[in-house]
Amino acid sequence: MSLDRFFNAASIAIIEASRDVTDAGYQALVTLQEGKFEGRIYPVNPKEKKILGLKCYSSVLDIPENLDLALITTPAETLKGLLEELGQKGTAGAVVLAGGFGELGEDGRKLEEELVTLANEKGIRIIGPNTPGMISLNNGINLVGLKNIPKGSIALLTQSGNIALNLITEANLKSQTGFNYYVGVGNEGDIKFHEYLNYFTEDPETKVILMYVEGLREGRQFLEQASKTSQVKPIVLYKSGRSAKGSKTAGSHTGALAGISEVSQSAFRRAGIIEVEHPGEMFPVAETLALLPMLKDNSIAILSDGGGHATIAADYLTDLGIMLPELQKETKAKLKAVLPSNASLANPIDVAGGTDRDPAIFADCAEILLDDKNIHGLLLVGLFGGYGIRFAQKLSFIEEDAAHRMGKLMESTSKPILLHSLYDYAKPHSLELMRYYNIPVYDSLEIACKCVESLSIYSSYRREFERDGSFQINWRNRAVSEVQEKIDNILAEGRKAFLEPEAKDLFKLQGVPVPESYLATTEDEAVLYAEKIGYNAAMKVVSPDILHKTDSGGVVLGLRNEQAVREAFNTIISNCNDCQPGANIKGCLISKMAEKGIETIIGMKTDDQFGPTVMFGLGGIMVSVMKDVAFQVVPVSEYWAVAMINEIKSAVIFDGFRGRPPSDKKALVELIQIVSEVAQAYPAIKEIDLNPVIVHNKGLTIVDARIILK
Amino acid sequence: MSLDRFFNAASIAIIEASRDVTDAGYQALVTLQEGKFEGRIYPVNPKEKKILGLKCYSSVLDIPENLDLALITTPAETLKGLLEELGQKGTAGAVVLAGGFGELGEDGRKLEEELVTLANEKGIRIIGPNTPGMISLNNGINLVGLKNIPKGSIALLTQSGNIALNLITEANLKSQTGFNYYVGVGNEGDIKFHEYLNYFTEDPETKVILMYVEGLREGRQFLEQASKTSQVKPIVLYKSGRSAKGSKTAGSHTGALAGISEVSQSAFRRAGIIEVEHPGEMFPVAETLALLPMLKDNSIAILSDGGGHATIAADYLTDLGIMLPELQKETKAKLKAVLPSNASLANPIDVAGGTDRDPAIFADCAEILLDDKNIHGLLLVGLFGGYGIRFAQKLSFIEEDAAHRMGKLMESTSKPILLHSLYDYAKPHSLELMRYYNIPVYDSLEIACKCVESLSIYSSYRREFERDGSFQINWRNRAVSEVQEKIDNILAEGRKAFLEPEAKDLFKLQGVPVPESYLATTEDEAVLYAEKIGYNAAMKVVSPDILHKTDSGGVVLGLRNEQAVREAFNTIISNCNDCQPGANIKGCLISKMAEKGIETIIGMKTDDQFGPTVMFGLGGIMVSVMKDVAFQVVPVSEYWAVAMINEIKSAVIFDGFRGRPPSDKKALVELIQIVSEVAQAYPAIKEIDLNPVIVHNKGLTIVDARIILK
Repeated sequence: MSLDRFFNAASIAIIEASRDVTDAGYQALVTLQEGKFEGRIYPVNPKEKKILGLKCYSSVLDIPENLDLALITTPAETLKGLLEELGQKGTAGAVVLAGGFGELGEDGRKLEEELVTLANEKGIRIIGPNTPGMISLNNGINLVGLKNIPKGSIALLTQSGNIALNLITEANLKSQTGFNYYVGVGNEGDIKFHEYLNYFTEDPETKVILMYVEGLREGRQFLEQASKTSQVKPIVLYKSGRSAKGSKTAGSHTGALAGISEVSQSAFRRAGIIEVEHPGEMFPVAETLALLPMLKDNSIAILSDGGGHATIAADYLTDLGIMLPELQKETKAKLKAVLPSNASLANPIDVAGGTDRDPAIFADCAEILLDDKNIHGLLLVGLFGGYGIRFAQKLSFIEEDAAHRMGKLMESTSKPILLHSLYDYAKPHSLELMRYYNIPVYDSLEIACKCVESLSIYSSYRREFERDGSFQINWRNRAVSEVQEKIDNILAEGRKAFLEPEAKDLFKLQGVPVPESYLATTEDEAVLYAEKIGYNAAMKVVSPDILHKTDSGGVVLGLRNEQAVREAFNTIISNCNDCQPGANIKGCLISKMAEKGIETIIGMKTDDQFGPTVMFGLGGIMVSVMKDVAFQVVPVSEYWAVAMINEIKSAVIFDGFRGRPPSDKKALVELIQIVSEVAQAYPAIKEIDLNPVIVHNKGLTIVDARIILK
Repeated sequence: MSLDRFFNAASIAIIEASRDVTDAGYQALVTLQEGKFEGRIYPVNPKEKKILGLKCYSSVLDIPENLDLALITTPAETLKGLLEELGQKGTAGAVVLAGGFGELGEDGRKLEEELVTLANEKGIRIIGPNTPGMISLNNGINLVGLKNIPKGSIALLTQSGNIALNLITEANLKSQTGFNYYVGVGNEGDIKFHEYLNYFTEDPETKVILMYVEGLREGRQFLEQASKTSQVKPIVLYKSGRSAKGSKTAGSHTGALAGISEVSQSAFRRAGIIEVEHPGEMFPVAETLALLPMLKDNSIAILSDGGGHATIAADYLTDLGIMLPELQKETKAKLKAVLPSNASLANPIDVAGGTDRDPAIFADCAEILLDDKNIHGLLLVGLFGGYGIRFAQKLSFIEEDAAHRMGKLMESTSKPILLHSLYDYAKPHSLELMRYYNIPVYDSLEIACKCVESLSIYSSYRREFERDGSFQINWRNRAVSEVQEKIDNILAEGRKAFLEPEAKDLFKLQGVPVPESYLATTEDEAVLYAEKIGYNAAMKVVSPDILHKTDSGGVVLGLRNEQAVREAFNTIISNCNDCQPGANIKGCLISKMAEKGIETIIGMKTDDQFGPTVMFGLGGIMVSVMKDVAFQVVPVSEYWAVAMINEIKSAVIFDGFRGRPPSDKKALVELIQIVSEVAQAYPAIKEIDLNPVIVHNKGLTIVDARIILK
């Protein structure tokens, strides 16, 4: 593992070490010493003899051994010289805190590239630049200078020091688990997200990887790694920068390109990543996945004292697609025996004050519920932990007994138990006990429900994982030499856009049936071709200068006879000359009007983060106004093409809505795959827009096609 | 004010008083004494002489004066006798804790009605039943037995004791404001939500009303009151019970009918209510609205130390529709003078570590930003409050100075300042100072952003309030006697559903142009009528026994000649006889095929909570699959009919999508209003379904109409 010498470093230089308590070069020394780092620490500062009892070296070159790692706290302009010296010391890695690189724009990015190239030549890999540092807690390596980091099995990868601070604070306050690694990836100048991910995937002590991402530099490699990682351990991710303002802020923060938010979402889902919606969910979801057994069948019971929390939890879990199965008859009978008559025995179960004098009844209920064959987990909501506080102190001992029983119940049944408690703030011992047994305690009901959802999503991902989750299929070999020549010719002509017939030809060459069409350069030719295709004809202008054919008056539809064709030809030519004087008009394309069917749009865009991405949706207002679109990054296999179709809400229309015949989904699935193939086979293509594609009961018609080159 | 004697009671009986610390009859005595209630307390219990130093009465009748209020903690079966006695004592109100009423179903509801009738006969109004009690903190009245309730200007109305406990706990932990009233409304058996609301509206010490609602018994009266209240002070509301499971749970909790969630949402919005999405937002939003000045122009600046929080806040505020205006040139220049070179001077402003050695720079920035004429408020996010903790203790004094400056800045500018701080948990003095100046401090970034949104929504509501928000228009006088006769006849025939021609007639009588149509009872008549309307004809079966005409083969469209009409008539009759043997077939309705246009659906439903409600959406899959529907409770004035059309996402289609002519929105607005009128004019009508209504460039056509009676 290439990052081994980073996370297990035995010798670390601190450049430059300092006595100022607000300096990173002081703080790192403190946390290395406090973390009982067992390797050698080499403070470097020519002006000092000793700092914190450690001998100071005036230069890297004076250090008496080869280095594993160096923390560089000095400004950008000092880096070249330092890397030179570190190279001589065989250093494996440098953590570069300095900013002034990619986050400042194009010039900064160049500087960053030069720096990385130089470092790599010297055999040095770089964390950052523009990072708060890195931590490998089990080895006592803490170069961030943050104290009191709770230990645990979560590896943290973030692009914001504040967010890391946030998560560490939260872990300290609300959990008994914590972190084993923290890497501030900074600008991802050298080491990328996927390389850290790979390391944490193979690290047996890491149970969950938690990520805060503003933008990925190597999105596709990240996805490939993530889809492998998710098969072994969960990745929990929060992505910011989805708004224009947010994405701009992210850009000036870490130089990240934030990409299209819907594309990220579908790509992350495909890779098995648990993407959380709110930053406040990051830590609780990671904790849940680190601690709890899997949730079977997406089915859970809610146990509550009082109707309010029960009602809200039922609303949330229903919205999130979690099942609240009916209880078996014998389960209800057993509950009835321990609960008062006004208790509600449906799921959610409301003990309705039945625990006021004996909170151990919660444990009775938990045992009864987890014995029900339809119930695979338990969410306890509301007041547990507070009976000793609300009523009498002796009740707190009974709550502690209940905590022991529920903790052991989770161990023996392997069914997850989650606890929302209003009394978490008071830190009662019963809740500490729940945590001891790995039962997470949440102070927010909505977050508790989101954690149930995440557990359910990851559990079903692990059960139902499809090999097709891979991002590694490559269809470069589907390239047809005739097409490649065409592309080269278009570029040679100085054009970026295919003409409509050229674009349709491309798809024909890739094996898609394209409707017969002919380029008429004169009125007479137009009539000839209209007769050849046997009317009813559509006519569209062909010109490299006219991109918006309809707006320029370059389209006439439904031509049923010779006269209509003649008039249309002249109208189009005259419209286009009026609209764009001097335009190079090649003629008009004559084709048969498409038969009726469902109008769809299939497109391809190049995303900032993930490259070629296929999109699919219905025509009309469904894509542009209703935003009912499915995205999937290339390659789109049959499995994912089917998934894209099913993902749009309006997909029901293909099954024969209102007595219409069903549409040929198979043809659609094939075309989506071919668009994906084309995107891979010809890297010069930047955008494809097949709009509309009319899907019939049998087959489909590409009515218009647009291809743009890079 | 009718509830004055409740909230300002001078004499209170506790029935029955108890020595058991877990009993409500003990706890209420404790909290009355601790709250320094200045009136007279009368514990009632025949078995006791004295409790907590207070003389015990063996019966209500022994109490030496007339009573304002009684807390009744005894079971349901004791109530009749007690009310009799309380009546003799001229008691104004009884707080009834006992359950066993409406929440148990029909029988319970009857029992509840009997109880309330009896009480009202004796001049007593009831809070509850099935309530945890009520609190009027400024008068020292606390009948809930909860201690340590923070005082403030928020009046709390809830249907769950747990949720109240939750909110009170939160206020204690995270705020310097709190509550002046708390009423557990329970089953709303007698006093309803709107009556409490009316009282709090007129109470000068109440600044915000905070509500948790499972279901409203008198929804329309509530809306009417709420729309008046919102003009004076904000109502913050969380509504649960939106899922099937949640609504069932709410039903067994307080006997509430939860209603259709989309209907509630639109009704609440119209009434100016701030409906929060998550329970965790209830208290922070109420606090925000209680403390802060209004936010002008929906425009705010974000100030941050570090990119992560800035990026996330920008994403959230953008999603929530808040503007982050560009800063003026001079503002940027002033910021540049106080911030380091790597700071980001766009909005969001990232000080990028520039406050590490002097956090008072936050106050400098705040002063500069609020001096910008485009910036009307400030959201400070991230690390403020933690500089003394992270670096050196002396920095905490500088933070305190900054807090004083920002507090006074808010006072002098009347521009709201909101603070998200990662260090709230540590309770630094600087944050206490911010709160002293009424600047709310949030520990969750997403909630801070939601609070900005609420402030913005309420501010614009107060600016732009339309008289049309009222729910009080009544169109009973639009009833036409012929229609009322028709309804009576249909009911007399034992029918619930109008026939299609009857339904269309109704709209004709209400003044809507309805296409000419004729009921043909024979094949020959069908031909006669088809000729009369001049072809192209549609033919539909008319039968009280056939509700689903298309499914029964009872519809044939596009009949262009005599032969087609004859065949269609026979096909329809034979299909319908096959499909539903013995059906009473009145004949076939002949009408002209509607011209092209946009297919819409206009309907009316009777909602559990709010009664008649109009719905509107596009035909096809837009309503049923895409859920793109607008609801509005009756009456729907012109203003709200226009709002309904604009509310659906697909509304752009009416403006002439893709070169189509624009649609006649005015005709649509009129028809929506008439549906609303019909719903009010004829209370016997339960449901109306005009589907489809085709909207043309001029006018519209009601193609099919269905009306169902109660």
